[in-house]
Amino acid sequence: MTAGTAGTAGTAGAAGAAARSGTAGAGAAGDEGREMHALVERLYPLCRSITGDGVRRTLDIVGESVPLRVREVPTGTPVLDWTVPKEWNVRDAYVKDASGRRVVDFAASNLHVVGYSVPVSATMTLAELRPHLHTLPEQPGLVPYRTSYYAETWGFCLAENTLAALPEGRYEVRIDATLADGHLTYGEHVVPGRTSEEVLVSCHVCHPSLANDNLAGIAVATRLARRLAGTDPHYTYRFLFAPGTIGAITWLALNRERAGLIRHGLVLACAGDRGHLTYKRSRRGDAAVDRAAAHVLRASGRPHEIVDFSPYGYDERQFCSPGFDLPVGCLTRTPYAGYPEYHTSADDPGFVTPEAMTDTLEACWEITRVLEGDRRHLNLSPYGEPQLGRRGLYGSLGGRSDTKQAQMAMLWVLNLSGGDHGLLDIAERSGLPFHVVADAARDLRAAGLLKELA
Amino acid sequence: MTAGTAGTAGTAGAAGAAARSGTAGAGAAGDEGREMHALVERLYPLCRSITGDGVRRTLDIVGESVPLRVREVPTGTPVLDWTVPKEWNVRDAYVKDASGRRVVDFAASNLHVVGYSVPVSATMTLAELRPHLHTLPEQPGLVPYRTSYYAETWGFCLAENTLAALPEGRYEVRIDATLADGHLTYGEHVVPGRTSEEVLVSCHVCHPSLANDNLAGIAVATRLARRLAGTDPHYTYRFLFAPGTIGAITWLALNRERAGLIRHGLVLACAGDRGHLTYKRSRRGDAAVDRAAAHVLRASGRPHEIVDFSPYGYDERQFCSPGFDLPVGCLTRTPYAGYPEYHTSADDPGFVTPEAMTDTLEACWEITRVLEGDRRHLNLSPYGEPQLGRRGLYGSLGGRSDTKQAQMAMLWVLNLSGGDHGLLDIAERSGLPFHVVADAARDLRAAGLLKELA
Amino acid sequence: MTAGTAGTAGTAGAAGAAARSGTAGAGAAGDEGREMHALVERLYPLCRSITGDGVRRTLDIVGESVPLRVREVPTGTPVLDWTVPKEWNVRDAYVKDASGRRVVDFAASNLHVVGYSVPVSATMTLAELRPHLHTLPEQPGLVPYRTSYYAETWGFCLAENTLAALPEGRYEVRIDATLADGHLTYGEHVVPGRTSEEVLVSCHVCHPSLANDNLAGIAVATRLARRLAGTDPHYTYRFLFAPGTIGAITWLALNRERAGLIRHGLVLACAGDRGHLTYKRSRRGDAAVDRAAAHVLRASGRPHEIVDFSPYGYDERQFCSPGFDLPVGCLTRTPYAGYPEYHTSADDPGFVTPEAMTDTLEACWEITRVLEGDRRHLNLSPYGEPQLGRRGLYGSLGGRSDTKQAQMAMLWVLNLSGGDHGLLDIAERSGLPFHVVADAARDLRAAGLLKELA
Repeated sequence: MTAGTAGTAGTAGAAGAAARSGTAGAGAAGDEGREMHALVERLYPLCRSITGDGVRRTLDIVGESVPLRVREVPTGTPVLDWTVPKEWNVRDAYVKDASGRRVVDFAASNLHVVGYSVPVSATMTLAELRPHLHTLPEQPGLVPYRTSYYAETWGFCLAENTLAALPEGRYEVRIDATLADGHLTYGEHVVPGRTSEEVLVSCHVCHPSLANDNLAGIAVATRLARRLAGTDPHYTYRFLFAPGTIGAITWLALNRERAGLIRHGLVLACAGDRGHLTYKRSRRGDAAVDRAAAHVLRASGRPHEIVDFSPYGYDERQFCSPGFDLPVGCLTRTPYAGYPEYHTSADDPGFVTPEAMTDTLEACWEITRVLEGDRRHLNLSPYGEPQLGRRGLYGSLGGRSDTKQAQMAMLWVLNLSGGDHGLLDIAERSGLPFHVVADAARDLRAAGLLKELA
Repeated sequence: MTAGTAGTAGTAGAAGAAARSGTAGAGAAGDEGREMHALVERLYPLCRSITGDGVRRTLDIVGESVPLRVREVPTGTPVLDWTVPKEWNVRDAYVKDASGRRVVDFAASNLHVVGYSVPVSATMTLAELRPHLHTLPEQPGLVPYRTSYYAETWGFCLAENTLAALPEGRYEVRIDATLADGHLTYGEHVVPGRTSEEVLVSCHVCHPSLANDNLAGIAVATRLARRLAGTDPHYTYRFLFAPGTIGAITWLALNRERAGLIRHGLVLACAGDRGHLTYKRSRRGDAAVDRAAAHVLRASGRPHEIVDFSPYGYDERQFCSPGFDLPVGCLTRTPYAGYPEYHTSADDPGFVTPEAMTDTLEACWEITRVLEGDRRHLNLSPYGEPQLGRRGLYGSLGGRSDTKQAQMAMLWVLNLSGGDHGLLDIAERSGLPFHVVADAARDLRAAGLLKELA
Repeated sequence: MTAGTAGTAGTAGAAGAAARSGTAGAGAAGDEGREMHALVERLYPLCRSITGDGVRRTLDIVGESVPLRVREVPTGTPVLDWTVPKEWNVRDAYVKDASGRRVVDFAASNLHVVGYSVPVSATMTLAELRPHLHTLPEQPGLVPYRTSYYAETWGFCLAENTLAALPEGRYEVRIDATLADGHLTYGEHVVPGRTSEEVLVSCHVCHPSLANDNLAGIAVATRLARRLAGTDPHYTYRFLFAPGTIGAITWLALNRERAGLIRHGLVLACAGDRGHLTYKRSRRGDAAVDRAAAHVLRASGRPHEIVDFSPYGYDERQFCSPGFDLPVGCLTRTPYAGYPEYHTSADDPGFVTPEAMTDTLEACWEITRVLEGDRRHLNLSPYGEPQLGRRGLYGSLGGRSDTKQAQMAMLWVLNLSGGDHGLLDIAERSGLPFHVVADAARDLRAAGLLKELA
């Protein structure tokens, strides 16, 4: 299905555009928050990994909200410095004690199996089994999340408390998995814009039952795509739902030319916890998306944090590799490894909230508003101030000590529109919110005082 | 009268130069402070506006101290995006109650009439009158200052307390004013320099009975002009006494080529209140006048504030419009709207002090000292330090742990005079006062170690 | 003797290289600290000045540790703006009271004679003598250090307490000195590198019995030279042991071409007191040595201070004169005049400690490690991250929340090695210690992922 042609997206988009001109109202946000949380809960039980049916099923469900173009890339395909790995699927996995009781059971949680474990079927002593068991001794009640994509091994993850209670003796160990030639699967949704210049929104879809990392990101991206539908944007918005690292690398390998069209980008992860928003700058550090995100977070008065780029984290690592050096930042709430629930069974749907996801969505939306609206202009009356009053743009009774924000915005836009400052520059320098500055520019254009530059 | 030819200026200049070599002594400052305050008191009762006889009379009085070239620009003259308005003059204005008592009287204070009120002569109920009455409910004892230059209307300003005491009933309302073709009036005083490059000092002369805004600015500008007379400056100093906004716009319209000769400029306003000095940077932000003002305020140890440019305030708005983008900053004490007396009847001569005006004057003077003295040099002995001791420039008994400021200044000037740093740069980098650095450069030039660059 | 050919240096170098790969162990540092302190104690009694036998004897003793090429420059030689002065030597000097007792005695401390005093032999009253006596009234128990190199005079320094106890009466005054044509003496030690580009390490050798200023600097420089011997460095290291000011000026005058080969430099002074390290930037402010020193001090977690260049202090004044503008900073512990013992008899060997000198030495050594190792590279796999795991460079079991510093360093080096960032840039931006980044680059080069640029 080609993005933008599906009825679902079109309908949602029209509704969304009607409900929100500018920013979404609280009621609409409430609905969106509930929808996003419902999506997290529905996706939670699936056994995702960097390949396999869990990813396919996830994309199917996302595709119910926004039309996806799904791509299957065969095992062995060379992608940049990497190779698409074998596909991995698990049917069942357990450790049974001497009585036949499943003391570790994949059916209870897909976190119990180390990701990409090779098949195993054996009976062994606890001592022999122990090197294959992973726990979190400092969080003894939680099951950790572990993978071994590129070194063939097998293992189980379990709570330290469970392990401590296991008696010596022999255990039946079984991982009924296939690790075989197949495909790597990713999905794309495109909101077509008036230009071929693109905004990339990317989120990883490879983690199994972890809600904040990254089902919340998937939910926010999906909802953002629906909001954008039908807005006739300047930019073409590309939403990428792909496995972490190898998925981004595969997409980049297959889209080297398209990557050159990316003007702005956001990686979405950890989008639903109760912490404040954190924006991590692109490698460039001063890309438009970096400045837009900083402005949105600052101007909104939200508690937030802005951190410099580092080559670790999510797929900004790949997009910001020096060969591509794309202007892609990363928006999270609490960043990876910054909360004790990270990569454990405690990152469940209860850990993410509708309110937090709505807040992340709003920030994303506002960032797109800045990116869409950030234009440069030429003041057509640059010698002295033009007489705003004559044009109905200025209060006529002078001498009052209060100055309205809208009038200040007009003065700022006129003063700085020599062609070298965009509206975001002006918002930053004036300390005014971007939308006030953008509205002033619109009014000045309407009055013939300002000309938008190409 | 052509600037610089008047006997008054010449005499004052010679006396001033004798009394102050470098900075003015405290005694002289005392005299100057008293003279400035006397000028404020004398100008205070006049009914100034953006046109009219109040401006003419103000320029007459200023012209007693410094010769002014007065320009009359006819109503209807196109000036940049604006047009010179009709001329406004008031003879009398009042509101009389049923008993014939003037409850609001222009003769008591010219603030009582909204500036540019059209003539009115009528009898009406208090209810009919009320929309034309302006008060300050939160400062019930004060009369506000209001104008309506470009929307024809009429009105009175009065204390909220006065309004509250008015009984219902009929009132006789009269504004005996003319609003008719005439002229806009401004004055210029020029202190000729050795070059045609100009320093602009501008102050608005359009406010009626408001002492700090801007009689104090007029007084400081007048006194600064007298100090500069006879100093044979490098720059030509142009003092502009013009109505706010339309006056600056008119001057710019009639002097577009001359504007290109302006190398530095200061707008003077709110120059006499008891608050500390505030310098507002030019649009460029790093113009020489911005750096000179910052240095003077910092090096003097005065409490002060330096704020970035914004396109609101006084006539720096016009001089810093993007078409001109002149290096003009604004020096005030407490900035506009920053004190409760702003634009009220409480901004009277008692609100400004001789000491505060003298302090503003000193800062202006020191800024001109920096602008005049900021030259680049070439160290003629740049390899190693030259032997200062041999030339009598260095204490001969070494080993003491104290280092004299003058000697540090010489070392700094020698070290940084490769042609790319001026003396202000050196003062800033060294943390030394400008005059110490300038004296060091003078001594090094005398010793043949330094050559002034063109 | 030519640098690098002496057995002493060779042997020490081999031993040093064996004992320290990377950074010196605590045991070795203890030995080095004791050796440095022993050198300070041995040099302390010598009567050094800017010329004379005290300097020669000092260079003889330093030459026992590292081979020196000693240069004798005749009195009267023009050197830049200066002239090599007469040579000064003292045999004896005293003030005797009426009873014949030496109340001030050069034999007790060479600080008692003002440096470069002309000979005197006379009897005079205390009143006549007094103008020639220098004390520290605020530190009455201490003898000050005073010189008068370029104005011929004579004088004695003594404790204020001693002066206060002198009765009126006649005193025999004698300075048995010669001030005559001779030579200025300095020494150089060179550790040859693979390139002719030089690192200059300079310390002044002109102060008499003052331990921190600058025997500690001499000791640290000597020890640093021994550490570098046999390390086959990229740079050629030139150690300059010369009198302050006139020595540096003389060296620069005789080595104008060689000065152009200096890529980095450090002036060492006040290297042994208990205060923290202070690095003073070169005139350029952002030279590689400035950045290397700042990194070493910051990354080590030492309390420290970094100050901007000023044209006063030690011989960085000469090296950073605008004609040369060499990238030479100055490393001290407490800077000149920053401690009460400065230029007094309290700056004795007890004032400097083996631990402090060892700490200064370590900082110098680490700075050389950064300068030596700061190379630029090209990431040969710049599109996406290369697969480090396949090359054994990455832990294979993913999903753990801890990230190793070494792996972060690899990611940073790969991400920033587009040719425009050196390893020090990368260390600074990543916040990782330089040696971790350098090791990562080494491993990536070995894996064929990185190419060193010329």
